[in-house]
Amino acid sequence: MKHFLNINNIEDLNATIKEAIALKAHPFKYQSQGAQKTLVLLFFNASLRTRISTELAAKNLGMHVIVLNLSDAWQLEFEDGAIMNFQNSEHVKEAAKVISQYATIIGVRAFPTLTDKAKDQSEWILNAFATFATVPVINMESATAHPLQSLADAITVAETRQKKKPKVLLTWAPHPKALPHAVANSFIKTMQLQDVDLCIAHPEGYDLDPTIVKNTPVYYNQNKALKAADFVYAKNWSSFSEYGKILNTKSDWMLTKEKIGAAKFMHCLPVRRNVVVEDAVLDSDQSLCIAQSNNRTFAAQIVIKKLLESL
Amino acid sequence: MKHFLNINNIEDLNATIKEAIALKAHPFKYQSQGAQKTLVLLFFNASLRTRISTELAAKNLGMHVIVLNLSDAWQLEFEDGAIMNFQNSEHVKEAAKVISQYATIIGVRAFPTLTDKAKDQSEWILNAFATFATVPVINMESATAHPLQSLADAITVAETRQKKKPKVLLTWAPHPKALPHAVANSFIKTMQLQDVDLCIAHPEGYDLDPTIVKNTPVYYNQNKALKAADFVYAKNWSSFSEYGKILNTKSDWMLTKEKIGAAKFMHCLPVRRNVVVEDAVLDSDQSLCIAQSNNRTFAAQIVIKKLLESL
Amino acid sequence: MKHFLNINNIEDLNATIKEAIALKAHPFKYQSQGAQKTLVLLFFNASLRTRISTELAAKNLGMHVIVLNLSDAWQLEFEDGAIMNFQNSEHVKEAAKVISQYATIIGVRAFPTLTDKAKDQSEWILNAFATFATVPVINMESATAHPLQSLADAITVAETRQKKKPKVLLTWAPHPKALPHAVANSFIKTMQLQDVDLCIAHPEGYDLDPTIVKNTPVYYNQNKALKAADFVYAKNWSSFSEYGKILNTKSDWMLTKEKIGAAKFMHCLPVRRNVVVEDAVLDSDQSLCIAQSNNRTFAAQIVIKKLLESL
Repeated sequence: MKHFLNINNIEDLNATIKEAIALKAHPFKYQSQGAQKTLVLLFFNASLRTRISTELAAKNLGMHVIVLNLSDAWQLEFEDGAIMNFQNSEHVKEAAKVISQYATIIGVRAFPTLTDKAKDQSEWILNAFATFATVPVINMESATAHPLQSLADAITVAETRQKKKPKVLLTWAPHPKALPHAVANSFIKTMQLQDVDLCIAHPEGYDLDPTIVKNTPVYYNQNKALKAADFVYAKNWSSFSEYGKILNTKSDWMLTKEKIGAAKFMHCLPVRRNVVVEDAVLDSDQSLCIAQSNNRTFAAQIVIKKLLESL
Repeated sequence: MKHFLNINNIEDLNATIKEAIALKAHPFKYQSQGAQKTLVLLFFNASLRTRISTELAAKNLGMHVIVLNLSDAWQLEFEDGAIMNFQNSEHVKEAAKVISQYATIIGVRAFPTLTDKAKDQSEWILNAFATFATVPVINMESATAHPLQSLADAITVAETRQKKKPKVLLTWAPHPKALPHAVANSFIKTMQLQDVDLCIAHPEGYDLDPTIVKNTPVYYNQNKALKAADFVYAKNWSSFSEYGKILNTKSDWMLTKEKIGAAKFMHCLPVRRNVVVEDAVLDSDQSLCIAQSNNRTFAAQIVIKKLLESL
Repeated sequence: MKHFLNINNIEDLNATIKEAIALKAHPFKYQSQGAQKTLVLLFFNASLRTRISTELAAKNLGMHVIVLNLSDAWQLEFEDGAIMNFQNSEHVKEAAKVISQYATIIGVRAFPTLTDKAKDQSEWILNAFATFATVPVINMESATAHPLQSLADAITVAETRQKKKPKVLLTWAPHPKALPHAVANSFIKTMQLQDVDLCIAHPEGYDLDPTIVKNTPVYYNQNKALKAADFVYAKNWSSFSEYGKILNTKSDWMLTKEKIGAAKFMHCLPVRRNVVVEDAVLDSDQSLCIAQSNNRTFAAQIVIKKLLESL
């Protein structure tokens, strides 16, 4: 593995999930592996879980961790050939090469614009770092993907599943703000690689990138999609076709205890209570959200471990 | 000790002060105690002393420390049953449970609103973390209490006292901004547990919470209160009865070298020079302020040590 | 060495450069030297390279590192005798003394106002810390000097030079913003101590502090100055005589591949591409910029090492 930019950078997903579960049982087993090695985490956007779990994962492996909020530095330029006479103080070419000399691995979090679809789809920030860095780059949520989250999700499903081929539903849910597609995209890509019966539900107009959805069944009727689901993953996203728009609020798509029945409930967090899902679900034993967030540590740890091994 | 939310969470204050003084002499004696353990510090408000001394204390015990300014994440919701359709992105229920999985101990700094007395008195932020976290929580200054400061103050008095029962005066002092009651409250509660002759001085209208002051003598005449004082602790606070208001500036309550005589001068810092107290006091050997701030490290260290031992 | 405030705090520059190059080959050779010691880094201004390389340098020596952006604390007062009734919450006297108790060494970054020449020339922030701190202070770029950068520059020249006495040109270059003189000042002072043929080029009106330039030849004609140069160091600065002003943009002073010929190109970064220097230079093997930034780690590491040794 050269970089961890997307879930398909992992060669054998099932083996990796097993290794992550083994790490969870013995998080300090490889604590000398990262000695004298440094993980630099670059945040272009806010973070709570990713920030803490990724730092913890690296420290479990004995690494130093240096965190930089780009807002504490300055704005980067990403355009090739730019005449840098305006706001941006440093080109990503320099930034990525410079930081590569200080870091064994670089983590990058950079959300989409949600206004410029082509730019977002090009993964301009993440790919610039992957191109110009001379060390491995980890995607800590980019414009279109959040593979550390989906790996944690897959670990959680693997730990919890009780059927040979459980039904896993990803359902759109309401939200007051226009949100990215990254979590939904990565969850779909990851579950498509798992032995599950995956389907997607969302209101009309909220179709996700067809190159990601592929043949996965899509329902515009949430109740129909929820039937016999074993895992219900709720997530809001803004429109992909009318890019970044909130088409309607569809509050009747909020998940309730009645709706999910006996299914396990999943969400990447942060979650808007009583908008995305009602309290009764989150406060019940059916919610896997807290377990998912715990698995963020071991998802990050197995990824860092594999990158260290491939140096 | 389950949490360290207030000074009375410490069972034997005098023994703890002695242990802290012993730690100060040998700060690295227990440096393997915190191995593979992580302290996560959450700051809702600005910090200098608390930030550095608490991190140092944990590292002296061999812990990892992860610091998060909540302004680098997002706004939390604290209301039970809230329909989270506005500014707040994550409920403290999730935040506290999630961080508990990454942390061995969580430190929280959260100042009062000074506009909503009932909310502040309920310690809505600190208590929410204490309620929903599944690991010990340390108060790094909350709406109504600053027990790490008052423990450091008690250590400083213990190191410096020369009489069997010294006279300790907490006196209000002027300040251009409306300030919380936390430091004053915790100093009073802590000194009430010490073998000292404690009294309080402030202008009329500045009476502190009567459930904290109890039978401690209160003077509205600063000069009278200063007589024969061995320790003079200056601190501004806003009105408690006319909640959060600055009633008057009373610049004649500024502490001077003439006023304090031979007494030792104490302040938690940061201090407004020549407003709270004149330069001549702070620059003299009578000032214990720098020693107090040094003891913040060992106050934090003994608290963390005890919490680690009670896991 | 008591503090590292300026390049002349280093006693034997050539020996120090050799030691830094040796550290680069074996960065972890002295990793027990900083055990149980703490470097506190205080940033009044934005940072990327300095922030990461200095933290890395200290960790290579086994130190703990605590980073504080002053914007996460509060504004400091620097004036002696000030009546602190306005914005500033804490006097540097207290801040420096307090932090000295938590730190083995303190690093400070504080840029100039570029509006108050006398204040900037007095190095009010840096010198206040050096005066009131009771531990060594490292200059991480101050109003008038950036000696960690110029030490890294000298290491880079030492590693790269092929002549007994190479010609080193420091040339002004265009920039959209008014910039400090710190990098230019320190580069001149450092190169004056090296066995090189140093000269300076800039448009009229951009003369640097004559007490720093001394007898170093100055050209107002860039092309003439560039002739036979072995190293071309480009840097913008605002006017020193018309303090902090941008007198003109002089875009024809941009460095190009044609202009520099076979010379090595140097810049402290961040650099405005196609304003200060064209892409073709930065993307060529002639550019030493990335190597310079790598040497920032070893410049910081040798300075910290020497300060630790002098404790």
